[in-house]
Amino acid sequence: MNVEINKPKEVIANRDKEALVEYYEQLNPFEIAQFISELETDDLYFAFECIDNEQIRDVFKHLENEIQQNIIEYLELDRHRLAKLLNELKPDDRTALLEDMPEHISRRMIQLLKPEERRIAVKLLGYPEESIGRLMTSEYVAVQPHYTMPEVIQHIRNFGHDSETLNVLYVVDEKLRLVDDLRIKEIILASPEKTVADLMDDSFVSLNAADDQETAVKVFLDQDRVALPVVDGDGVMLGIVTVDDVMDVAQEESTEDFHRFGAIREAISNPLTASVGALYKNRIVWLFALVFMNVFSGYAMQQFEATIQSMVALVFFLPLLIDSGGNAGAQSATLMVRALATGEVALKDWGKLVGKEVFIALLLGTTMAAAVSVVAGIRAPEIVVVVALSMVCIVLVGSVFGLLLPFIFTRLKLDPAAASAPLITSVSDITGVIIYFSIATWYLSDTI
Amino acid sequence: MNVEINKPKEVIANRDKEALVEYYEQLNPFEIAQFISELETDDLYFAFECIDNEQIRDVFKHLENEIQQNIIEYLELDRHRLAKLLNELKPDDRTALLEDMPEHISRRMIQLLKPEERRIAVKLLGYPEESIGRLMTSEYVAVQPHYTMPEVIQHIRNFGHDSETLNVLYVVDEKLRLVDDLRIKEIILASPEKTVADLMDDSFVSLNAADDQETAVKVFLDQDRVALPVVDGDGVMLGIVTVDDVMDVAQEESTEDFHRFGAIREAISNPLTASVGALYKNRIVWLFALVFMNVFSGYAMQQFEATIQSMVALVFFLPLLIDSGGNAGAQSATLMVRALATGEVALKDWGKLVGKEVFIALLLGTTMAAAVSVVAGIRAPEIVVVVALSMVCIVLVGSVFGLLLPFIFTRLKLDPAAASAPLITSVSDITGVIIYFSIATWYLSDTI
Repeated sequence: MNVEINKPKEVIANRDKEALVEYYEQLNPFEIAQFISELETDDLYFAFECIDNEQIRDVFKHLENEIQQNIIEYLELDRHRLAKLLNELKPDDRTALLEDMPEHISRRMIQLLKPEERRIAVKLLGYPEESIGRLMTSEYVAVQPHYTMPEVIQHIRNFGHDSETLNVLYVVDEKLRLVDDLRIKEIILASPEKTVADLMDDSFVSLNAADDQETAVKVFLDQDRVALPVVDGDGVMLGIVTVDDVMDVAQEESTEDFHRFGAIREAISNPLTASVGALYKNRIVWLFALVFMNVFSGYAMQQFEATIQSMVALVFFLPLLIDSGGNAGAQSATLMVRALATGEVALKDWGKLVGKEVFIALLLGTTMAAAVSVVAGIRAPEIVVVVALSMVCIVLVGSVFGLLLPFIFTRLKLDPAAASAPLITSVSDITGVIIYFSIATWYLSDTI
Repeated sequence: MNVEINKPKEVIANRDKEALVEYYEQLNPFEIAQFISELETDDLYFAFECIDNEQIRDVFKHLENEIQQNIIEYLELDRHRLAKLLNELKPDDRTALLEDMPEHISRRMIQLLKPEERRIAVKLLGYPEESIGRLMTSEYVAVQPHYTMPEVIQHIRNFGHDSETLNVLYVVDEKLRLVDDLRIKEIILASPEKTVADLMDDSFVSLNAADDQETAVKVFLDQDRVALPVVDGDGVMLGIVTVDDVMDVAQEESTEDFHRFGAIREAISNPLTASVGALYKNRIVWLFALVFMNVFSGYAMQQFEATIQSMVALVFFLPLLIDSGGNAGAQSATLMVRALATGEVALKDWGKLVGKEVFIALLLGTTMAAAVSVVAGIRAPEIVVVVALSMVCIVLVGSVFGLLLPFIFTRLKLDPAAASAPLITSVSDITGVIIYFSIATWYLSDTI
């Protein structure tokens, strides 16, 4: 191993193209992608330029979306090279890339494609965003029932070169409607005189191009497949979706849910590289809305000024009580958001779940009331009954509210994850304030 | 279509085995699994018994884990049938099942396996839980460099029947060390006189059996593969991991993160079917801990009793201020928990992120202080300065704390998602109370 190769960063600082090419020869495309991902912008462009033409496509597809975009904007200076790169990407990866680019750039990029590739790109982009159609690739092999085994093999030799996966072949009828799927294994293991029709079991699972990508995630999780065929409304086969693309979708969707639930408006993939503006924008909306919601809790409290004046100790337990309601609510919302996202729970189940939640919330509330009574009993024995009683009521109301909110959001066709922990905290605070001081006013007016 | 077939539920209620078998004939195993999943326990056992022996394995593997377990416990009455079912499951699916069963049942189940299958099961179970070794299947095809193409095909015919995927063949040397991977496509497209060595590019990606399953998720997301080989510390090939199993892991892990973040101790897959006891147990721990944490905020407030007495209006803004700190903190924690989970951010990045967060938090805090000043200005002009100043400080402290907590948890080798929204809310409350009333005491003692 050369000295230079031990110090690739130095090689780059010196702009030593020869030594860098030598270094790349020891790496596979994934390792090269990892290596250049860690470089600063200018070094990255240089390092990218040094990659062998044979490997450039493989390296490119292993880069993060953001870095891909930077490289494309940089490469616009060299349209010939950009065109080559784009034309060599797989259709589904290319669609994902085009989708994320600003429109004026993606439009220019489509112009760089070869007529055939342009036709595919425009077609894929014709499906609604977030639809299965956008994930499709047309790189699969389809056969017809009357093919014999040698014909199938010959067909694969003719048309299989670009196929993304050969694990499964698809059987279509004369109208190109999907009628079955066959594993390549069955073909290899079958005796040569058999036809495709002999191997068919007429059982297959397919996706609809117009369906949401979430559906694809659920079907893939259920089916344990590596690829699934996509059909249109008439059952005509349009393409396939492979599990690696669906896995990316699943990952993005759970990030979105997570962020929504933490009251971040849009998913931010990397907080290290995201701009201050994007972070500010995606956080201030909810924070601002919640401030105005919280104003109501102040207003509610004002109504109880006399009670508070007469017993300031009440205030000491306020954060504890309203937090407990919010926390219990955040828990039940968490369970529902996730269960609705994974499909374990459907909209119609809300009634059953409320019944169960009331029971659990009473158990939780009673346990916590017992705990807090110990504390209140020492510090402010005169209000221990108020605090304990309020705890049970507040936990109950918070829990049921937290459970219902994701259902209400889903019903209104909003993302259930927007029923975020902070939102539930804020709403629980208002109801908590009202419950606590109402009970206090009633109890203290009786006893004092 | 028969009348009975239109009313499958009626068929089941009547225990009409013949009609049910007829109904099943029109469904694929996945549809049968969906159908029986919706049945109540006794009906489910009956419906399961009616499934054709040929299909039973496929139906079984499409059932949810929980239902699988119920069926197994029921089938223990018929050990012959249970043994057949278990022996026919794929090793990786079987390991997942054995892992989730109570130990006394899983031990009995292992005894039911054929010697060969038992050997595999015990070996897989020998790897640590959550390790890649547990996900492996030994159903792959390995070839050696000197094989010619016809020899490869013959080898596949001999040993490929049980292979889970034939998309990729693995090349191992005489010591069974993995040296390359080849796509089946390359074999089919190659001319017959070539050997495996001719097709090799000596570039492959592999996983280590001892590594955490999270590593597998990250590698699969990066690599766009459908299967990856698993090796031991010496590079000897042990098995393969397929993307469908990794997708299940990814889904489980993000559910776990989500639940942890919402202060649920362990992931609960389906809140509809989970027992009240499990739900109570997994929720009360955090709620209880948070109650005791909140006691401190009450204690802190007690120190400011005189200030509160002299200006009860301060209390009206308390929930608003402490919530804002908690909300901003929950946002930055959300971003970090997710970014640490997906690997976008590493432990060493905390310094850079804090710098950025301070800047963003000051922007957020100032915006919110401006908003709340309008409200406070109308309702309590004498404390508008206190409220606005406190807002900026509380949002700043909450944000930075929310950002740091996931890093601290990771550093302590705890799950960063345990830096949950409720935990951050509770801690922010204590600091918020102290900041707010300190500023108030200082300001009011000056002006009044």
